[in-house]
Amino acid sequence: MWTFDALPRERLARAYGFAPSDAWLDHLRLSSARLARGCSASFVSEGGLVLTNHHCAHACLEQVSTAERDHVRDGFYAAAPGDEVRCPDVEVDQLVSIADVTPRMTRATAGLEGPRFFEAQKAEMARIEKECQTSDRLRCDVVSLYHGGIYDLYRYRRYQDVRLVFAPEFSAAFFGGDPDNFEFPRWDLDVAFLRVWEDGKPARVDHFLRWGAEPPREGELTFVSGHPGGTARQLTVAELEYLRDVALPEKLLDLAEYRGVLTEYARRGAEARRTSQAALFYVENALKANRGRFAALVDRDLMASKVAAERAFRDRLAQDPERARKVLPAFDAIARSQAALARIRAPLWLVEQAGGFRGDLFRHARTLVRAAEERERPNEKRLREFRDSALPALTEALFSTAPIHDELEILKLAYSLGKLREGLGPDDPLVRKVLGPESPEELAARLVRGTGLRDVGLRRRLWEGGKAAIDASGDPMILLARQVDADARAIRKKHEEEIESVERRSSEIIARARFEVFGTATYPDATFTLRLSYGSVKGYETGGRKVSPVTVLGGAFERATGREPFALPPSWLAAKGRLDLATPFDVATTNDIIGGNSGSPLVNARGELVGLVFDGNIQSLAGDFAFDERVNRTVAVTNAAILEALEEIYGARRILEELRPARAGAPADGPARTSPGRP
Amino acid sequence: MWTFDALPRERLARAYGFAPSDAWLDHLRLSSARLARGCSASFVSEGGLVLTNHHCAHACLEQVSTAERDHVRDGFYAAAPGDEVRCPDVEVDQLVSIADVTPRMTRATAGLEGPRFFEAQKAEMARIEKECQTSDRLRCDVVSLYHGGIYDLYRYRRYQDVRLVFAPEFSAAFFGGDPDNFEFPRWDLDVAFLRVWEDGKPARVDHFLRWGAEPPREGELTFVSGHPGGTARQLTVAELEYLRDVALPEKLLDLAEYRGVLTEYARRGAEARRTSQAALFYVENALKANRGRFAALVDRDLMASKVAAERAFRDRLAQDPERARKVLPAFDAIARSQAALARIRAPLWLVEQAGGFRGDLFRHARTLVRAAEERERPNEKRLREFRDSALPALTEALFSTAPIHDELEILKLAYSLGKLREGLGPDDPLVRKVLGPESPEELAARLVRGTGLRDVGLRRRLWEGGKAAIDASGDPMILLARQVDADARAIRKKHEEEIESVERRSSEIIARARFEVFGTATYPDATFTLRLSYGSVKGYETGGRKVSPVTVLGGAFERATGREPFALPPSWLAAKGRLDLATPFDVATTNDIIGGNSGSPLVNARGELVGLVFDGNIQSLAGDFAFDERVNRTVAVTNAAILEALEEIYGARRILEELRPARAGAPADGPARTSPGRP
Repeated sequence: MWTFDALPRERLARAYGFAPSDAWLDHLRLSSARLARGCSASFVSEGGLVLTNHHCAHACLEQVSTAERDHVRDGFYAAAPGDEVRCPDVEVDQLVSIADVTPRMTRATAGLEGPRFFEAQKAEMARIEKECQTSDRLRCDVVSLYHGGIYDLYRYRRYQDVRLVFAPEFSAAFFGGDPDNFEFPRWDLDVAFLRVWEDGKPARVDHFLRWGAEPPREGELTFVSGHPGGTARQLTVAELEYLRDVALPEKLLDLAEYRGVLTEYARRGAEARRTSQAALFYVENALKANRGRFAALVDRDLMASKVAAERAFRDRLAQDPERARKVLPAFDAIARSQAALARIRAPLWLVEQAGGFRGDLFRHARTLVRAAEERERPNEKRLREFRDSALPALTEALFSTAPIHDELEILKLAYSLGKLREGLGPDDPLVRKVLGPESPEELAARLVRGTGLRDVGLRRRLWEGGKAAIDASGDPMILLARQVDADARAIRKKHEEEIESVERRSSEIIARARFEVFGTATYPDATFTLRLSYGSVKGYETGGRKVSPVTVLGGAFERATGREPFALPPSWLAAKGRLDLATPFDVATTNDIIGGNSGSPLVNARGELVGLVFDGNIQSLAGDFAFDERVNRTVAVTNAAILEALEEIYGARRILEELRPARAGAPADGPARTSPGRP
Repeated sequence: MWTFDALPRERLARAYGFAPSDAWLDHLRLSSARLARGCSASFVSEGGLVLTNHHCAHACLEQVSTAERDHVRDGFYAAAPGDEVRCPDVEVDQLVSIADVTPRMTRATAGLEGPRFFEAQKAEMARIEKECQTSDRLRCDVVSLYHGGIYDLYRYRRYQDVRLVFAPEFSAAFFGGDPDNFEFPRWDLDVAFLRVWEDGKPARVDHFLRWGAEPPREGELTFVSGHPGGTARQLTVAELEYLRDVALPEKLLDLAEYRGVLTEYARRGAEARRTSQAALFYVENALKANRGRFAALVDRDLMASKVAAERAFRDRLAQDPERARKVLPAFDAIARSQAALARIRAPLWLVEQAGGFRGDLFRHARTLVRAAEERERPNEKRLREFRDSALPALTEALFSTAPIHDELEILKLAYSLGKLREGLGPDDPLVRKVLGPESPEELAARLVRGTGLRDVGLRRRLWEGGKAAIDASGDPMILLARQVDADARAIRKKHEEEIESVERRSSEIIARARFEVFGTATYPDATFTLRLSYGSVKGYETGGRKVSPVTVLGGAFERATGREPFALPPSWLAAKGRLDLATPFDVATTNDIIGGNSGSPLVNARGELVGLVFDGNIQSLAGDFAFDERVNRTVAVTNAAILEALEEIYGARRILEELRPARAGAPADGPARTSPGRP
């Protein structure tokens, strides 16, 4: 997970005999993209065609569906440009430049501790971002790498008009469902094509990936260029113990119960099922991923190695008394902050992070209530999510036309109000204030049925009306958001002042000491910034069994039972005779990825797209804490399977023509020439 | 939790200035009772009236209800003896005698290890029990105390005709619901009266508790005589780590998801709600209890003290090389067995323990399928639950007339078949064999709708028909039970041979070494055998707040919101004006109890009943691993509140008259004279 500006080319050359040029790297970086709400992607045509996963477009597919036309179940294909449908809240970002702002950030916080450190850091970030962001088409984020060892300014080209071009049926994209999720072998076509538009027409992009003529072969060098969301490999032992003993168990129990509720809710009928499927997918995916993380942390060997590594590092630090005096207390400060975090975890999660107030309607209400206050403040004094540079993404979400389903909203809010009461206790003053005599179910139903916030127009008027409009509003959801806002802000403040600021400051100290001792021999923990991983197509052994790294299309037909989640869609059954069943379908590679990398292109040494990353195997879940190349695998759909399906199953001529021209042999190592693609 | 034959009277006298006589102890023991499926109780009249908790009678209340007459919601009162309704599967046991059989058990297993040890132990237990059990009215159990340090033969008078006499409304019994469960202060009337019958009329009992004239006062000495189900205070650190890292997290996640499913299922309608309420109560109760156990094990101090104690014990053992050579390897053997257990936990739970096949119908099917084989074997070669001494309880459950609700059965079976697939993986041969191409939902619906096992008559015919009848049966649930039986037995055998036998043998060795070093200064871990705990009515501090140990009836009215679970029933609202609102309602005491003690009498030094134990506070959940008298509290309903409610709210004259005579001042320390009670 190297940053593009710090790839260890000599190490790569030693291991794989290949040293990418600057041009190769720039081209790959500029052909890569991020879906701002949490996925990766790539440009695959001059005409702005974007390749990502079905599960990254799942929410959009549901949002553009209706009870009559279910694009999740049936798939989507825009046979003509005019048929492409805008996704209500997808933003595509392309990383244009990286600049080191560490000196400036360091100056701004020099000598400060605790809340003053935190405020100064936040203000400086807001200033840097505001100076950078000269247009709404740009997005500027100050990001921290190595837990504060480096601060970089990431500048993105931002696309907010993103349209749906193609997606297969859910049952083909997620064949095997939750049982097969995070497993390998796999037979999934987890693919979607989107397109970035600007000024009312498809955008033209300068960089895009050529579609590889050959599928990836066992042993072949592969690159993944994408946005791993977060890893925790450089955390202290105290932080890992907090995760293991408190945060993960609590999160898992919530996810498990919520899964049960959603599963049973879906049985109410076809429409309940349709509208809750994306939520259930998200919950099941998170549950399985976090179970894997928990299993890694209760693994004796992994934790013992973490403890040993920290002890060795501390021993090394202790050899220099001056450095020891400066750095060792930071470990203790972090340990204390974790104990404090355990004490406020419940209200922080339930009240400030809205774990007790789930659903779109409350989310909109809180955004409006807070925006009314925050927008009256100077940019650098605002809560981070209301700084000027963040407003384009914020308003895109607030004014999203995505449908809001009342029954599902009631379910979510009632469930989470129940969790609020459970987590804080029925005698907690906030709980009493919120619930009054009502049950969670009653209150949720009254608020959801009574609010007008499902209307984008009302949200826009309340946004534009600012504080006066919010103060005058009698909307019950707005009233709830106002009622809890002081409590929520108080717990956030406590968290920032007593925990987050201590963690950040102490992590910075530790990270810099680590640089001094070890240099940058390892890459920074993932932070949803663009990273490059190299590896190769490779099988592995598990439980005494050898797993081959490539599956073929025919395997899906062998595995199919006709029942969900092992049911292939009718389109596949009808096309079976036309398909080359020996086509490589999904592959496993040794690339180091993590959640957020979904949708990343898998690229060969020629810079050609040879696959689409959509998952990791079950062993990859421990990758949050440590990467074990023996068994940790990235899972991708091959370029060949995507073409075969587009051609023989979906007849998606328009996409095929747009991709085809790029298949011809272009220079092996250099930016792609722009080609006469369409539209 | 002292056994009645080993109460440290001098210690008690030193602490509380009271030394009970043999007669006092015998009387209390014989006035105590056990509900065989997992609760405690006491006899409170000569006429066989039994006092226990509402939540111990909850299943019975549901089983005797119908869609038209909901005794869980509305309560139950038999105004005349003939109105008492038999509970389909409640067994009441009264402990008649305890005999030490350690020498006999030790002889039978001398020099044996592993499977041979296990088989010899099982066979000797079966022999001892069979010799003892001269009638179906007796129940004989060989029980292990101190993890094999002592083996005792417990002989019980068994009552299988148990009838319902009185229960309040669920909303009064469980006021505060899950939010208030395991909390204090409390305002619950968690009370039910049953009656043991024999030969078609109420049984007459020789020993019963006098109803105390005064409620328990702060500081007063209190005894709890009951059946704590199980504690884990004498486990090795390896066993505790297995619980913390594997068993408890897995169990919690299952309970949490199942809770979600049941909660949402109940919203299908009134009948779904009525029939699933007891299951939901059980799941929520187990979830909260196990969360408390998990929290205790991730508490640094508690685990550190366990590690330190074990190290100190091992150091002590190491001082005697001969003993060290004999005992220390037992710790390692247990550690290895825990690692092995982690590897087979999933199939053991899902297949042999039927976690993957939940519901009454499969349970009946498995009993029948196994009984057909087991009953052809000699008594001492059978699976424990099919030994002759166990058959009366087994057949009572098998021939229970409790209603079976198809939709709930489908829900349970579908959910658990999903867990089976999840836990073993969709490619596991057993999963493939069971599911075939069907989904868990389809298979569950087909089996439940297709089976005839809801008919007691068919179950009886299959039982009586033995192996020939089972082999000839085409009932789909019987077929399923047969289909998985070999796999289930195989995993059970593996568990017995590689884990259970090692644990038992090693625990015995450690327990005896512990005796040699420490004597019997502590009581044995709870094993659902009768125990006596002494303590006193006492408040405590938590989170800087002082909690008073007594609540009053009026508090319930103050807390009531009118909405479940804080809604008082109409009967209470109507009676409010007649009630003495200052009556002590629930109390907290320092008695050491655990799950299984529910329904235990709280008794004063005069041997009078002054309360009914129904819960512990949240701090008591750590009591599974260590008892902390500063905060661990038993929670009981007072004698006074029960009388006040029977009199003023329920007008339960017949019960009041039966209890009243015993209130007159009888000898303070000695068996009660039989009194002219009714009926």
